[in-house]
Amino acid sequence: MTAKKRPAPPPLELREACILAAWEVIAERGIEQLSLREVARKLGVSHQAPYKHYPTRDHLLSEVMRRCLQGFAAFLDARPRHHDPEQDLESLGLQYLTYAREHPLEYRLMFSSPWPESADPQELAGDAVHAYDVLRGVLRRMHGESPGVQEKVELDALCIWSMVHGLAGVLNGQCVDRLGLKPLVLQRAVAHAMTRMRAGLAAEL
Amino acid sequence: MTAKKRPAPPPLELREACILAAWEVIAERGIEQLSLREVARKLGVSHQAPYKHYPTRDHLLSEVMRRCLQGFAAFLDARPRHHDPEQDLESLGLQYLTYAREHPLEYRLMFSSPWPESADPQELAGDAVHAYDVLRGVLRRMHGESPGVQEKVELDALCIWSMVHGLAGVLNGQCVDRLGLKPLVLQRAVAHAMTRMRAGLAAEL
Repeated sequence: MTAKKRPAPPPLELREACILAAWEVIAERGIEQLSLREVARKLGVSHQAPYKHYPTRDHLLSEVMRRCLQGFAAFLDARPRHHDPEQDLESLGLQYLTYAREHPLEYRLMFSSPWPESADPQELAGDAVHAYDVLRGVLRRMHGESPGVQEKVELDALCIWSMVHGLAGVLNGQCVDRLGLKPLVLQRAVAHAMTRMRAGLAAEL
Repeated sequence: MTAKKRPAPPPLELREACILAAWEVIAERGIEQLSLREVARKLGVSHQAPYKHYPTRDHLLSEVMRRCLQGFAAFLDARPRHHDPEQDLESLGLQYLTYAREHPLEYRLMFSSPWPESADPQELAGDAVHAYDVLRGVLRRMHGESPGVQEKVELDALCIWSMVHGLAGVLNGQCVDRLGLKPLVLQRAVAHAMTRMRAGLAAEL
């Protein structure tokens, strides 16, 4: 006996429901298993229903990722602020690491999963740039706004992003737990890396 | 009509064939889909056959990961060597990034996937420690062997691993391509990060 289809909810509600259902599919079965058919099955609506709002699976995935990127940028914006840009940069790094630890699925979706190819590339890129601009903004306060230092801002932004992304991956990964490191070393890893990075950033190039 | 079972190959051959088949399952369908049943299906042998060599799926996964870790450590050992430890550290970093770029699946398996829980934890950990010791060895040449600096060695090892792991993740990921960064910035990202890291490591703590 096949399951009875529920009547489709009103359009706006279905549009939002698809996003929540997509999120559940990704969380339970991995991003590879996301399809509009699977979303329809989870919602108990007809196979056709999600297509009214999302022409392809990538359009839906794009919307899920936009929500992630917007939430991530808002989380970074909500860090404890400091007038001193060096202190603010450290606060931003800690906030980034907190996000990665507390939202591992969102974090993996944004930074370790294939991005949707076809759908709304401009809008998605815009949200990614907005999140990245939080970091560039702090570095501009540190290095200045003059055109001559913008390449340094860009290179340092990539460097700092890589450092915190790497800390998140190493400390939240499972390999590090097998190395027999002392608890004190693990506890001090972030503060130590930030000290090294601060000294590195202060160096004349 | 069900597929005819091939006669099981001789024991040693089957033991190796399981590893190759497991690798194919992981590459094609993701680590979550790895099971001894799936490996048996791929090899065209009876469901029971792989159990002769691997009591559980985690024992097989453990063997696959050991091969990865050993190959990774050998790759790091094969870097261009330098007498000067600072230069050697840079060579190690570049070799690490080359491995991550050229072996993305192995890299993800070691550092971004759940490790097997039950099987041979000591042997697997030993291989992980061996790979990590390549990095600690270079840092001991830099900082010295005296007990007083071993905590610095450990903290710097975690810091440098995080930096190169982060560079690998950012530069091989898909997010960075959507940020509209200039090609020159991307080309110089690794050299710049290494310059910052070298300056950071040289600082007195």
